[in-house]
Amino acid sequence: MLDSATSSSGSLQGIRVIDLTRVISGPFCTQILGDHGAEVIKVEPPGRGDIVRSQGNMVNGFSWYFAQFNRNKRSLTLDLRQEEGKAVLSRLLEDADVLVENFRPGVMARMGFSDEVLRERFPHLVVGRINGFGSSGPYRDRPAYDFIAQAMSGFMGVNGHESGEPMRAAPPISDMVASQNLAFGISAALVRRERTGQGDIVETALTNGLISMMGYLAAEYFATGEVPKRTGNDHPMLYPYGLFQASDGEVAIAPSNDTMVERFLGALDMLELLEDERFLDNRRRMDNREALREILDREIARRSVAEWIEHFNEAGVPCGRVYDLHETFEDPQVREQQMALELDQGERGKVPTTGFPVKMSEAPAAIHHPVPELGEHTEEILAALGLAAAERGALRDKGVI
Amino acid sequence: MLDSATSSSGSLQGIRVIDLTRVISGPFCTQILGDHGAEVIKVEPPGRGDIVRSQGNMVNGFSWYFAQFNRNKRSLTLDLRQEEGKAVLSRLLEDADVLVENFRPGVMARMGFSDEVLRERFPHLVVGRINGFGSSGPYRDRPAYDFIAQAMSGFMGVNGHESGEPMRAAPPISDMVASQNLAFGISAALVRRERTGQGDIVETALTNGLISMMGYLAAEYFATGEVPKRTGNDHPMLYPYGLFQASDGEVAIAPSNDTMVERFLGALDMLELLEDERFLDNRRRMDNREALREILDREIARRSVAEWIEHFNEAGVPCGRVYDLHETFEDPQVREQQMALELDQGERGKVPTTGFPVKMSEAPAAIHHPVPELGEHTEEILAALGLAAAERGALRDKGVI
Repeated sequence: MLDSATSSSGSLQGIRVIDLTRVISGPFCTQILGDHGAEVIKVEPPGRGDIVRSQGNMVNGFSWYFAQFNRNKRSLTLDLRQEEGKAVLSRLLEDADVLVENFRPGVMARMGFSDEVLRERFPHLVVGRINGFGSSGPYRDRPAYDFIAQAMSGFMGVNGHESGEPMRAAPPISDMVASQNLAFGISAALVRRERTGQGDIVETALTNGLISMMGYLAAEYFATGEVPKRTGNDHPMLYPYGLFQASDGEVAIAPSNDTMVERFLGALDMLELLEDERFLDNRRRMDNREALREILDREIARRSVAEWIEHFNEAGVPCGRVYDLHETFEDPQVREQQMALELDQGERGKVPTTGFPVKMSEAPAAIHHPVPELGEHTEEILAALGLAAAERGALRDKGVI
Repeated sequence: MLDSATSSSGSLQGIRVIDLTRVISGPFCTQILGDHGAEVIKVEPPGRGDIVRSQGNMVNGFSWYFAQFNRNKRSLTLDLRQEEGKAVLSRLLEDADVLVENFRPGVMARMGFSDEVLRERFPHLVVGRINGFGSSGPYRDRPAYDFIAQAMSGFMGVNGHESGEPMRAAPPISDMVASQNLAFGISAALVRRERTGQGDIVETALTNGLISMMGYLAAEYFATGEVPKRTGNDHPMLYPYGLFQASDGEVAIAPSNDTMVERFLGALDMLELLEDERFLDNRRRMDNREALREILDREIARRSVAEWIEHFNEAGVPCGRVYDLHETFEDPQVREQQMALELDQGERGKVPTTGFPVKMSEAPAAIHHPVPELGEHTEEILAALGLAAAERGALRDKGVI
């Protein structure tokens, strides 16, 4: 195991992040930075805070959906519509390394923090932002929603059965991909800042992130001018490959070349199929896919998923069970990799969240802070900023914090 | 536009990457580093090189699939099974900042480059690696395939219709997510190295990356113990939301709260539906989803997708067409954001690839090098390393380069 949940450091130790984001894409990005040691100050509107605090499944009055994206942060309430709130933000930015926001394009400028102002007043700052379609172009002002980004990136259009409708991915994949892109972009800009002292403005968009993930499907379109068809769970160019029906569920089998196909059919004791005129090579197997599928499903239906997984793994055939999330998190490999991590939320109880996908040997990701209550750190952050108790009281009286 | 394809710099300018990876996940990661200014030396086996050079759609004898993942790199051929090849790799690593590999766990150690050796001989080096399941645990030696990672991460199990089978995403999403995770991890480790002088070993796995993307679906499972059901294109908690049938295709509509639902029904001139007992609030709309869907589809079928998109956007309703890849790359917003970039490959012609999802204001990503021919830069790289012409000739005679 490379990770330790008890380490107090991380690759981004000493980096201070002012986090104005809410909902998913921004908070997931700043959580990644926090997991790796950055000090993240989550700035939330007084009163209800990030809207996700009251969404999803609540346990002990605490949103586990919110917990999933907001560990390793401290919370400061601040009304950015009031001048006093903007003044506090300015003071925060003077000592910060990174600012992250996911407002619609133009909102920061209307608050008095345009790109020009940020560059002039905080030249050392790395500014990260996520929006729906990018901050230039005809759709710049449209609101950002994962479902729309999945539709317009071409991602949804290639998923699903050819005879059925286009199919979204259930997780908000465009948000999550944008979070990752921004975490990378901010870190790359920090590498440059360490060398030059200069900040930068880093931006990513839900649509752009998913488009960049289209990979060889985009290459196929560029090369042929033909749009890739939906092929369900079948590989567009290989057979046998895909889901097969065992006696108690589906098994995923992915023999990616002729050697693997021989291993697969050998493990089924059906190597003679490769002498059948219809199945001599991959091209003929593709042409006669349904006939071969019927033969294979009939054999595979004789045994359980567990039996086949063990048998195929012994034979070196890439395979796996189609897990539901319970099976995923109970899997011994997933447990060994600590892909669920329990947060100690005190009176709120123990709250599991997904683990760290990036493992570091010397400076591992770790739980530095549990998920903050709304405004939990307002006093300590403002005091550290040099605001006297009387000033803090005045801000509180005016509803700024 | 933040990006310029003519800039000669980038956030990672001055970072040298030795890239031992092949196929998708590793090459996409190192391409991201190269896009942002790192100098990437792609090390390939003499003869055929990266297997993807001969896969996918070939145009002018050139794989556009390979091009999609290998711009902004130079190519060096090197046989790492021969001692002389290992010696050249050692010399390369002395002057490098980053090493990236996606062999199965243990392969680097058998080549003489175990973690211990790397740490001792190259303490400044950031080592990045991608594998299927992680380098510890019972499945560490199993081969990595996207389809299997989609199955075992729980990702496939939540996609698709409840009545149908689990549904993969067509792009190799676990590879692409792992690439992004590793690009982030390497950059974060470089931030630390700038401050401490110490390298690190950074690792990510196809399964772990996708598990970390399960987001609120994981939170739902953790909170309730129930595994999330497949809901096709429907939102699990909101209605109306999803795909609707216009006269000439599907339109994606995502009203995420009551205000948006009012705008949506107002735009349809059907606000009276909200006074219908069956549709008074979201809970009742969920209970009577099929009845409402029928009413809405009947109305939406009267006009074309294009008419509805214009109409709904005017009304501030989040919506979009389900694009195929041709429509995506022809979209004016996507063009404005330069999400397709043409590489000038000389005699191989002009080759489009997907653009940069991470935009930087001061140090933008750019095309620094087209896609290299196999071994195109072997001579110049080895000469720069101090190998005399006679030494290079001897290596070539022995088939090392």
